[in-house]
Amino acid sequence: MNPVEIIKLKRNGNALSRDQIKYLIEGYLDGNVTEYQMSAFLMAVYFNNMNEDETFYLTEIMLNSGTVLDLSHIKNPKVDKHSTGGVGDKTSLILAPLVASCGIYVPMISGRGLGHTGGTLDKLESITGFNVNYEIEDFKRILETVGLVMLGQTSELAPADKRIYALRDVTATVESIPLITSSIMSKKLAEGADALVFDVKIGVGANLPDKDESIQLAKKLISTSKKFGKKAIAVLSDMEQPLGMKIGNWLEIEECIEMMNGKLIPDLYKLTNVLAGAMLYLGDAAGSIEEGEKIALQKISDKSAYKKFLEMVEIQNGDVSYVKDWANLKRPEFSKLIKAEQDGFISEMHASDFGYAAIELGCGRKKTDDKIDYLAGIILHKKCGNEIRKGDVICELFSDDKLRIDIAEKRLEQSIKISKIKPKVNPLIIDILD
Amino acid sequence: MNPVEIIKLKRNGNALSRDQIKYLIEGYLDGNVTEYQMSAFLMAVYFNNMNEDETFYLTEIMLNSGTVLDLSHIKNPKVDKHSTGGVGDKTSLILAPLVASCGIYVPMISGRGLGHTGGTLDKLESITGFNVNYEIEDFKRILETVGLVMLGQTSELAPADKRIYALRDVTATVESIPLITSSIMSKKLAEGADALVFDVKIGVGANLPDKDESIQLAKKLISTSKKFGKKAIAVLSDMEQPLGMKIGNWLEIEECIEMMNGKLIPDLYKLTNVLAGAMLYLGDAAGSIEEGEKIALQKISDKSAYKKFLEMVEIQNGDVSYVKDWANLKRPEFSKLIKAEQDGFISEMHASDFGYAAIELGCGRKKTDDKIDYLAGIILHKKCGNEIRKGDVICELFSDDKLRIDIAEKRLEQSIKISKIKPKVNPLIIDILD
Repeated sequence: MNPVEIIKLKRNGNALSRDQIKYLIEGYLDGNVTEYQMSAFLMAVYFNNMNEDETFYLTEIMLNSGTVLDLSHIKNPKVDKHSTGGVGDKTSLILAPLVASCGIYVPMISGRGLGHTGGTLDKLESITGFNVNYEIEDFKRILETVGLVMLGQTSELAPADKRIYALRDVTATVESIPLITSSIMSKKLAEGADALVFDVKIGVGANLPDKDESIQLAKKLISTSKKFGKKAIAVLSDMEQPLGMKIGNWLEIEECIEMMNGKLIPDLYKLTNVLAGAMLYLGDAAGSIEEGEKIALQKISDKSAYKKFLEMVEIQNGDVSYVKDWANLKRPEFSKLIKAEQDGFISEMHASDFGYAAIELGCGRKKTDDKIDYLAGIILHKKCGNEIRKGDVICELFSDDKLRIDIAEKRLEQSIKISKIKPKVNPLIIDILD
Repeated sequence: MNPVEIIKLKRNGNALSRDQIKYLIEGYLDGNVTEYQMSAFLMAVYFNNMNEDETFYLTEIMLNSGTVLDLSHIKNPKVDKHSTGGVGDKTSLILAPLVASCGIYVPMISGRGLGHTGGTLDKLESITGFNVNYEIEDFKRILETVGLVMLGQTSELAPADKRIYALRDVTATVESIPLITSSIMSKKLAEGADALVFDVKIGVGANLPDKDESIQLAKKLISTSKKFGKKAIAVLSDMEQPLGMKIGNWLEIEECIEMMNGKLIPDLYKLTNVLAGAMLYLGDAAGSIEEGEKIALQKISDKSAYKKFLEMVEIQNGDVSYVKDWANLKRPEFSKLIKAEQDGFISEMHASDFGYAAIELGCGRKKTDDKIDYLAGIILHKKCGNEIRKGDVICELFSDDKLRIDIAEKRLEQSIKISKIKPKVNPLIIDILD
């Protein structure tokens, strides 16, 4: 076996065997397969795809490149959720404590902001002191103590994914269904959950811009989960416009706290509740997704979710008083109102443009060593379908740097569209697959 | 501009601008574009091809990455030939002196054996003392003195090609028409010839196994030549079976000497003569290819070609007495006859299998530092279409290592086919394009 032959097989459209994939991935980790051979292989996979078996083998080999957590000593069901990434998508921050408050354990490994999408870890770190870097023993301890844990990928879990992901990012090989599937699944399987709920985004703010590809991805995530003996559900949700009313790091934490304290934010509430319903159903805490949704609503209303959230902040070293002080609004020095220039209805708020504008404001990184402005972000005053009059505020931009506000405003120039007639707004929950 | 964006454009099927290609190639040479980004780009080109303009830009940028020879002080026409590579393909060794003996200068840069195909440089080095490594000043001096020069690519000519070629070889990105075109053309244009004749092989022994792709390659070589103001003709020739009766390094030199001394080897004669006719026609030494063929036949018959060959051997430091002693057969220690096991007609002599068998005998390298056995090789006693009786010799294997003969014999087990009825043999000259 040699790497060139294996690359050529994939390039020519053949299905690879388990041994061939293993040779390539393990060779890459031990240096017998070079970076340039791996990137040529990844591009060949981008074009020629992988079948069910190949995706399974790739996932399995990446999973076994590191530690696989054994949480079998925890008797409670363990369920996690993964989102393919969106703008203003903060559901994890509510879901994890909410579901944990129902006795389902949530071992959640999250990521940083990537491309135009925000990252759960960056959001959590906007809470003073909050630590997302723990070793495996602490991961277990925290999970056992409070029933949930939210942290970053350690070097022990799926190291093959960590290296391959970094390579994909700089070789234009991110948007590939088998590569996305194996990347997500190898990390999620390493966590030790029994069941997985996937939130697969569809629309201009999604990582795969094509709707059919997103549906294929959802199906592949489910089939791969089942091959590993895990229960799985995928919710296909709209990402044409940002989710909720706030985009940014602390701003998104704030919006979650608002919701966990009883504020109704329609789309954020709807999506969070469906995902929670699915997690409770898979964790056998409900007989159906609908029944799970009712339980979840109750846990929001009686503040169980919020209490669990505070427990997590405390155990992960976050400043609980900083969180409890949420109503005393924390805002950066500069802000600017974006107003409507005509009467009509909002027909478009281009999700990825809002994501990139948020990065311009300081919410994310353009280079890996950029510093984040945790209070920066965007508050939406209107959403698609809302009626508007000339001069009404559509959204507000926040940053510690005045210049950044001008750049972000420019970035949004073509991103908000107003129509004379009431537009048809996409349903938020497009489909649920299992 | 950044490398990932450019790779993504090509990956998504867009045509690249001159500036984008320049950024990528120059960035690769100066280290701003990594090996793994270049290999991902090459694989994207493999899948999404390049249009006429892109191929032209790529060739031009690779050409200008090094020295471009100016031979305008030489008043004689300068014409070169390039073959896409085959088994037993030794035409260059006759063509260059033949055409030079007609007053057309031949500045020929050749290659080493690659894959299953032999290399002109390795063949020339089977002549004791023959030097193929000269700097540009010597290249010019030899060309001016004897009217031809045959040597290897120097580090000054098309260095981008040298690096990209090496990368393609180890990333399964060799078989791409725009990449093959730009690689051939950047080297050939750097030599300073006015006109180019291409011998594009078709069949199982060709580098592009698909006939239509070979035709596309021929067309692209011609159109790119014309864009650079060079006259060009492409001869499409059969490479289902080896060319001529001898395969190996010295064995091929020997066969060329035999032909230049009057021996008729039908297919080798026919192809060499058509290519010579085309070179003489493009060099304005003949009014048509056919007229050129007649002149070429005359130059073989009166031994002008052989005299010029000896002049080249002498000026490039080769041992002329070794060459002149050709009739006193030089053979390695071991040999083995391969005989027919049944009566019938030879219907197949699989060219690339014969090429790989020759490598097993010691004619080529499997690793870059393998030593070549210059006398090793294969002599064919029969060719496709020949009638044969059980026990007749089909071919003879030669090597300095007895074990190698067994391995080569095994390699050829399925490569020679005998049919009961007389098979239809492919025409040698499939087409001529200009």
